[in-house]
Amino acid sequence: MTPTPRIVSGMRPTGPLHLGHYFGVLKQWLELQSTHHCYFFVADWHALTSEYHDPLRIRGFVPELVMDWVAAGLDPARCTIFQQSMVPEHVELHLVLSMITPTSWLERNPTYKDQLQQLAEKDLTTYGFLGYPVLQAADILLYKPQAVPVGQDQLPHLELTREIARRFNFLYGETFPEPQALLTPAAKCPGLDGRKMSKSYGNSIYLREDFVDVRSKVMQMLTDANRKRKTDPGDPNICNLFPYHVLMTGAEDQAAIRDACVKAEIGCVDCKKKLIESMEAFLTPLHERRRHLVEHPEEAWDILERGSAVAREEAQRTQDEVRRHINFLGR
Amino acid sequence: MTPTPRIVSGMRPTGPLHLGHYFGVLKQWLELQSTHHCYFFVADWHALTSEYHDPLRIRGFVPELVMDWVAAGLDPARCTIFQQSMVPEHVELHLVLSMITPTSWLERNPTYKDQLQQLAEKDLTTYGFLGYPVLQAADILLYKPQAVPVGQDQLPHLELTREIARRFNFLYGETFPEPQALLTPAAKCPGLDGRKMSKSYGNSIYLREDFVDVRSKVMQMLTDANRKRKTDPGDPNICNLFPYHVLMTGAEDQAAIRDACVKAEIGCVDCKKKLIESMEAFLTPLHERRRHLVEHPEEAWDILERGSAVAREEAQRTQDEVRRHINFLGR
Repeated sequence: MTPTPRIVSGMRPTGPLHLGHYFGVLKQWLELQSTHHCYFFVADWHALTSEYHDPLRIRGFVPELVMDWVAAGLDPARCTIFQQSMVPEHVELHLVLSMITPTSWLERNPTYKDQLQQLAEKDLTTYGFLGYPVLQAADILLYKPQAVPVGQDQLPHLELTREIARRFNFLYGETFPEPQALLTPAAKCPGLDGRKMSKSYGNSIYLREDFVDVRSKVMQMLTDANRKRKTDPGDPNICNLFPYHVLMTGAEDQAAIRDACVKAEIGCVDCKKKLIESMEAFLTPLHERRRHLVEHPEEAWDILERGSAVAREEAQRTQDEVRRHINFLGR
Repeated sequence: MTPTPRIVSGMRPTGPLHLGHYFGVLKQWLELQSTHHCYFFVADWHALTSEYHDPLRIRGFVPELVMDWVAAGLDPARCTIFQQSMVPEHVELHLVLSMITPTSWLERNPTYKDQLQQLAEKDLTTYGFLGYPVLQAADILLYKPQAVPVGQDQLPHLELTREIARRFNFLYGETFPEPQALLTPAAKCPGLDGRKMSKSYGNSIYLREDFVDVRSKVMQMLTDANRKRKTDPGDPNICNLFPYHVLMTGAEDQAAIRDACVKAEIGCVDCKKKLIESMEAFLTPLHERRRHLVEHPEEAWDILERGSAVAREEAQRTQDEVRRHINFLGR
């Protein structure tokens, strides 16, 4: 019998999660709980790379992120949920890996220059920001996972982790297996305006969003701009709304809506009302699980502390091995 | 009564100490023991920046460095001698400071490019090497020293530490006092060939050097090249030998030698024999103290473990404060 494979993944506690996070990442995490040993961590040190000006924000979003995760269906009894800064081995392995990682590998990181430009107002030209892929490599390698769930755009980061693992193994002897990419299926949830869903675009529906706000946001959405009157046939393929039906409305209803839209049998307001129903049905169990956690905020911290203790055991085992390999053993 | 001021300083465990280290650094450390609370650390993480290819070397020189220090007169009962990697707060503060340190501050570090060129064969273009001044800043600031003993050439490093301290204080509130430079007096000990004493030049006399080798090295030294015959007057000001008399021969004898040299009353061989006497007198107590440690190698580790426990208490206090200021507090 082969042992259950292990995966590691994290999110930065920099804001509430929205539908884009759910369909882009969390949905796969939920499935992985049944097939893998999962280590999911709140990447608070990483949050500091971009939010160092305002760390109080990070602090607030640490338990919020756990609440969003558990509300979405992560089960702390079936996966290890922990906080990066509660496991000190991350910072130590980060320093060790920094010694063997050429700066050129980091400077050629395609998202590095992207981010520098996108977040120009944030002054990210810090040493820590340049090195965040080294910290990521430490986050991953500490748990020796077989795989890491990633989107297409994060493949270069994972490749860097693999390169760093190879270099460590070459210099000090076989230590880290190279984690494989577990590509996230392409089911993406666009923003309300059709662009990528993102807090900074103001086009998001949050997992914790109040239904009053859900309704108002959906009712204000732009639909097929070519459909001037209710009697014009619509085109679901260019409508901002329809992708949400694909994600949240049952197959039969979905087909009926598509059919009625192209035949001009329903108007956009009706279509939106149906979407609101689907969204509320989708969000209701999340809100219920979340309500319990908001009423018992200590539970989020309990989860983190228990999970961090479990993660730390694993991290210590690896870091002991690392120290043995680099001869940093004390007496 | 003002409290005893505190200083912090470290050395990298990358080789045995020689007379250049003694007169350039250690001699001042010995004096500081009477006037300051001293934290002296074995900078093993720093050693990894240049010796990452061969960490077994570092491991060997960790207890060796402590033996050299104690042989030279550092007294673990009067100062705190510890190992950087035994105090995990160094790596954590290093990560925090990395988030607020612009890479440009590191790239303009004058010794960075110098070292890259000097040690070209070592492939130092790593992320960790670029960031070693950030690690230095963490090493220092953790202990909130009033001062740091430095040579003229290290002033830019200390200034960088001060800049990082100011930036932290500005972003998160007053935390770190800015350490002042305690300039090492200029008494330098040149190498046997007149250049800077350095392991890589092969021009060193080590503190643990066997007397047979001391004699042979001194006897082979080049003296005043203009003095062809014993009857030619010599010039102590351009002789490689005389600076050692200045450091190790008593004032009266020194004056007599200078006088006899310029009057051609003694030859270089006699002068060398006198120097060998002075050197042996200087090294004898060091060798005696060292012999005890070599026979009881566990004592070096005892010193490091006891000192690291003391240092760690202080480091934890500071790091608790740092975490409070950046809101990384756990529950």
